[in-house]
Amino acid sequence: MRYQVLVQLKTGVLDVQGKAIETGLKDKKFDGFKNIRVGRVIELEVEGLDKATAKAQVDEVCKLLLANPVIEQYEIKEVV
Amino acid sequence: MRYQVLVQLKTGVLDVQGKAIETGLKDKKFDGFKNIRVGRVIELEVEGLDKATAKAQVDEVCKLLLANPVIEQYEIKEVV
Repeated sequence: MRYQVLVQLKTGVLDVQGKAIETGLKDKKFDGFKNIRVGRVIELEVEGLDKATAKAQVDEVCKLLLANPVIEQYEIKEVV
Repeated sequence: MRYQVLVQLKTGVLDVQGKAIETGLKDKKFDGFKNIRVGRVIELEVEGLDKATAKAQVDEVCKLLLANPVIEQYEIKEVV
C-alpha cells in the first residue's frame, strides 16, 4: 500500500517560507498572490501488513518522525 | 482561486531526505516501509485574475520560483 502524508503548519502559525515566496513574487511583479503556505508531502510504501495495521503505523510514524505536532498538522491519504 | 502545487523530485533522482527517514524508521523497528519520497506542497491564493490567466501565472511562478526544473517535477491542482 502506498500512502501520501501532507504536513502543513497549523492555521495561525507564521509561515516564513510562504512570506518569503510572497515577497519574491511581489518583487517580480506578480501582485495577485496571497496567503501562500508551504508544507511537506511524504510518500511511503508499506508492505507485509494488513490495511488497518499499515494505516495505524503510518499515523504513528507521522507523530514520531514526520510532523511536529506542536506547530504542524498532518493528513494521511491512501494513494491508488 | 486557490491552487495547490506539489513539487517532487523526478523519478531516478536520489532522495536523501527519504533515505534518512527510511533509516530512521528501520532504527525504530518499523521494517515495512520503503520507497519514501519527500516533496513540497505550496498553497497559493490568486485574486483579480480570470481562471485561465491565474493558472498560467501559477505555472510561470512554478518554473521561476517554486520548483527546480532540472531535478523536480510539479503538478498544479485547483483547490475548491
